[in-house]
Amino acid sequence: MKSMKAFVFDAYGTLFDVFSVMEKCEELFPNKGDQINQTWRQKQLEYSYLRQMMGKYRPFSEVTRDALRFAVANAGAELNQENEESLLEAYKKLAVYDEVPGVLKDLKEKGMTLAIFSNGSHDMLDSLVKQSPLADYLDHIISADDIKQYKPTPASYTLALDSLELKREEILFMSSNGWDISGAKNFGFNTAWINRPEKPVEQLNLEPDTIYADLTGIKDWMT
Amino acid sequence: MKSMKAFVFDAYGTLFDVFSVMEKCEELFPNKGDQINQTWRQKQLEYSYLRQMMGKYRPFSEVTRDALRFAVANAGAELNQENEESLLEAYKKLAVYDEVPGVLKDLKEKGMTLAIFSNGSHDMLDSLVKQSPLADYLDHIISADDIKQYKPTPASYTLALDSLELKREEILFMSSNGWDISGAKNFGFNTAWINRPEKPVEQLNLEPDTIYADLTGIKDWMT
Repeated sequence: MKSMKAFVFDAYGTLFDVFSVMEKCEELFPNKGDQINQTWRQKQLEYSYLRQMMGKYRPFSEVTRDALRFAVANAGAELNQENEESLLEAYKKLAVYDEVPGVLKDLKEKGMTLAIFSNGSHDMLDSLVKQSPLADYLDHIISADDIKQYKPTPASYTLALDSLELKREEILFMSSNGWDISGAKNFGFNTAWINRPEKPVEQLNLEPDTIYADLTGIKDWMT
Repeated sequence: MKSMKAFVFDAYGTLFDVFSVMEKCEELFPNKGDQINQTWRQKQLEYSYLRQMMGKYRPFSEVTRDALRFAVANAGAELNQENEESLLEAYKKLAVYDEVPGVLKDLKEKGMTLAIFSNGSHDMLDSLVKQSPLADYLDHIISADDIKQYKPTPASYTLALDSLELKREEILFMSSNGWDISGAKNFGFNTAWINRPEKPVEQLNLEPDTIYADLTGIKDWMT
């Protein structure tokens, strides 16, 4: 395994566990929480893709709000302003997965550069990182909003590359999203897919370099 | 309501009922047919969006095959070559919705230009139309594959416009897909969303001009 100089992490589902958002959905919409949450996530991604393709960029915080409104309407439920704000706020207070702080601490002590690169806008990401145990380990918080081009466009990963001032082969990119890994691989990053739920590989002819069940495995890339 | 010169239809779910594909899924994968079919459709769209964003275009027939392979693996089932071919063939033998031939006949008799515009590649679309009762009514079968740009990119709708040699305000575009209607509206076509299952409007700030429960309603645009 090659030795990396920088480790770049996707945020949602990779470092941060969105379980508390699921819990909040179920609390506000009993028996419909799971359906609403799944549609919400699916539409959040879909709207970012569609807006990218139509040339109608909108920050991820607003796309997330739009997706929530569709998801609740689609489940035949009502969304008042208080519930909307409370669900969107939950995205800023996510817990990290158990192994994450230890892994980031180890990488940092070995002198690695650590960054988040997310489709999330800074109004979502910055407060999320600040309230987490990761704030001291991260050198950069890079948002696709800085260039208004969503992942998985090559332009978006170029922003991450330029922010780090390294060669792309010196960078390991990690995500729990198969499509994000395909985009990073397409761009030329080294890739590690953090496949917590053991999903099949996406059929996009861009296989990940490595697959791990959680973040512990990425220490392979530090040797 | 303005009077149109051309009526442009999306294919799958708009003119053609994909129910027989659902049936075939359930026949080959008992108790998993519904899950496989839903994932298949979702991934078919997702892969077309992702490939568009990554600059990795692939014809829709191959994207459809890729999506099927993911969907079956994701359900923990096995897909042999015979079943794969039989499911993909089902896409070329879809029935049309009941009201469709009558509506197209009326439009044609009034001298309207009729066209299909689909993400489907010609290897899928041409044989589908040929075996249907619609072949005689359709003046054009336009495929996004002719320009290798998927809907909802503006470039794709430009292909449809150029094929018809009309002004965009003389064209009504119809689709059962909310995202497709948003893309057509974004481009400047008149739009009618054929919303058979009464879904909520997509939250993309591009509302359809009209919404109908089936194709009968579009006669409003013929007066």
